[in-house]
Amino acid sequence: MPELFNVLPPDEAREVLRSHVTPRLQRETVPTEESLGRVLAVEVTSREALPSFPRSTMDGYAVRARDTFGASEGLPALLTVIGEAPMGRAPAMRLGQGQAALCYTGGMTPEGADAVVMVEQTQEAGPGAIEVVRPVAPGENVVQPGEDIRAGEVVLPRGHRLRAQDIGGLMGLGVTQLEVTRRPRVAILSTGDEIVPPSTTPGPGRVRDVNSYTASAQVERAGGVALRCGIAPDDEEALLALAREALGAADALVISAGSSVSTRDMTAQVINRLGSPGVLVHGVSLRPGKPTVLAVCDGKPVIGLPGNPVSAMVVFELFVTPLIGWLAGETYPQEPRTVTARLTRNVASAPGREDWVPVRLVRENGEFCAEPLFGKSNLIFTLVRADGLVKVPLDKGGLYAGEMVEVRVW
Amino acid sequence: MPELFNVLPPDEAREVLRSHVTPRLQRETVPTEESLGRVLAVEVTSREALPSFPRSTMDGYAVRARDTFGASEGLPALLTVIGEAPMGRAPAMRLGQGQAALCYTGGMTPEGADAVVMVEQTQEAGPGAIEVVRPVAPGENVVQPGEDIRAGEVVLPRGHRLRAQDIGGLMGLGVTQLEVTRRPRVAILSTGDEIVPPSTTPGPGRVRDVNSYTASAQVERAGGVALRCGIAPDDEEALLALAREALGAADALVISAGSSVSTRDMTAQVINRLGSPGVLVHGVSLRPGKPTVLAVCDGKPVIGLPGNPVSAMVVFELFVTPLIGWLAGETYPQEPRTVTARLTRNVASAPGREDWVPVRLVRENGEFCAEPLFGKSNLIFTLVRADGLVKVPLDKGGLYAGEMVEVRVW
Repeated sequence: MPELFNVLPPDEAREVLRSHVTPRLQRETVPTEESLGRVLAVEVTSREALPSFPRSTMDGYAVRARDTFGASEGLPALLTVIGEAPMGRAPAMRLGQGQAALCYTGGMTPEGADAVVMVEQTQEAGPGAIEVVRPVAPGENVVQPGEDIRAGEVVLPRGHRLRAQDIGGLMGLGVTQLEVTRRPRVAILSTGDEIVPPSTTPGPGRVRDVNSYTASAQVERAGGVALRCGIAPDDEEALLALAREALGAADALVISAGSSVSTRDMTAQVINRLGSPGVLVHGVSLRPGKPTVLAVCDGKPVIGLPGNPVSAMVVFELFVTPLIGWLAGETYPQEPRTVTARLTRNVASAPGREDWVPVRLVRENGEFCAEPLFGKSNLIFTLVRADGLVKVPLDKGGLYAGEMVEVRVW
Repeated sequence: MPELFNVLPPDEAREVLRSHVTPRLQRETVPTEESLGRVLAVEVTSREALPSFPRSTMDGYAVRARDTFGASEGLPALLTVIGEAPMGRAPAMRLGQGQAALCYTGGMTPEGADAVVMVEQTQEAGPGAIEVVRPVAPGENVVQPGEDIRAGEVVLPRGHRLRAQDIGGLMGLGVTQLEVTRRPRVAILSTGDEIVPPSTTPGPGRVRDVNSYTASAQVERAGGVALRCGIAPDDEEALLALAREALGAADALVISAGSSVSTRDMTAQVINRLGSPGVLVHGVSLRPGKPTVLAVCDGKPVIGLPGNPVSAMVVFELFVTPLIGWLAGETYPQEPRTVTARLTRNVASAPGREDWVPVRLVRENGEFCAEPLFGKSNLIFTLVRADGLVKVPLDKGGLYAGEMVEVRVW
């Protein structure tokens, strides 16, 4: 049972993987309204200026600013109201000296006007007349044509992951179709003679597959498409055949390794036979997750997750989630969801190793408490009881009860 | 142009709405593997114990713990190895006194064994024999049947939103189908004579619809189904007819109000005609978002968003996103995604009003800086430039440059 690892720190291991990954930028065109979470394959420029007309930002009166200069409560400017600027059409009137037109938020200001006085700063002065009690500067309360976006301006860069507001903004510019990268396809293979499909009743010594399903949901959450490729036995040739087929159909492959050392070593051997350069990292100074395998085989990333469900999920978060962003061509990865919480118990670690401790979050007196979940590491329901993970950095020997910690919610 | 508001603080306004909302718990059955983000309609209990057999957590030797008592480097316990416990099957052997069996992580321990010695704490002692150099306690390195989950135990409560690990854990228990609540359907209606569909070229004074699309993506992100119901003109009867039809097809209705005061007031009037009790809150001490309308009409929530795109998005985040969770029957809402950042400029507010300031996030020297985006409030692309919002609480007059603030990422 050899277990010799030349372990790398997690950040370094991730960089080694990243430096070997070429984003696969196959593009596809999708309706903008269905593009939430997709990554732009090209930069988007505006074909037109926004707004295309001078637009009031207030309910009030369109005026010539100079007609209001010097106006005050004591000495208001008297203006003649020549009409109302309609919503959704160009006003028919043209403002001359001493004239004003009623206008609404979002409406087009009439020709001749260069500012809008808020209705609150006017008072009626008989039929067809108002008094303005405060001066406005030219341009005040008006958005000028092109002030929001100029024609030809870059609206969003290539590699940007689309959010709700981007979709609204792009539709506002008439950009109803987008070139995005194809969702990365991630094949998932579980291994182990003891693993059976969840729909069956396991015989003695057997357990149902957990990791394929956790990993599939993690792929989906990261914006990829999961291809579940079944369960391989602890047999090198059988695993190789299944892995080859799975990788052929996907952009990356995740193998949830058998849990014993011998089958973990077999996973690394199989990965090396899938293509060159093969295994880049075998062993990370990480708990849980030490036996992680990071590899690239003929241009496609292959990750070997530990068999233990908690370890598998942690390693997926730290290595596969960012990988899916790289494959999609994302420039800036999303920050993980975190909450700040007070640690309820001491957590021991070892310097030189990065620990990710599963914690349960409990609300107490308006703050979150993070309760470390100890106990045997391969209990499946430690996963379910855990709301997130607390990191003990490489250079720390542990964390103290009462410390405020960042919990990475999962 | 009357604009009289009896404004409520945002938290109070949200509570008023919540107290009038009855979760609509229609159920549907979905495959567990497709349930990410759905809300459980029933509590899930385990039909069986997990694991169903005593399971080794280590690679090593299954032993009778008492045979190792007193063992040390100087005086190891000598045990006879009677075989290897296979993966995925019940071991055929039965351990007698002084005997051990090779076993692997995740494998079933043989009858007669009550503990596992890690391989690192043994050494070979000739063919078919090992020396154990450290004692193990009964149960050490073994997960007992039912230790992970007992038969009949509640695994997940009703109202729980399903995460990746829940799906893995449930599949591990053979729970391949789940009763979840139907996704809440949220109808979205834009209003305004100046609004045209994004696929058309706006004439003078007209702009393309933005809010319908931002809101649809926000609905999707919150786990609902968006039903876009078009654009209503600034005409009370036409708006009422469209709103009635939209609400009939949905569990809730969001109306993006016209941007002028008169059309905003019209929205409130129409909402009051949709059913009782009608408008609950008209006006919130919030910037942006003061003219928010919160209503319930014959059992269905109706929200009036301000027409300004930035305001509409903020009000959606604060009121409609939680509403979608309530409708789905979610017990604990997800914490919003936040990052901590250093504010780059002073932000002024008014005490008694809650402000949400759009900010851009910039990474500088390993920390985030939050740059407030000022400028005319109805620029559409303020939305796109903003990575999130910083809250100035009700009781504060502003925030200072250099303060560390929580940015709600959107």
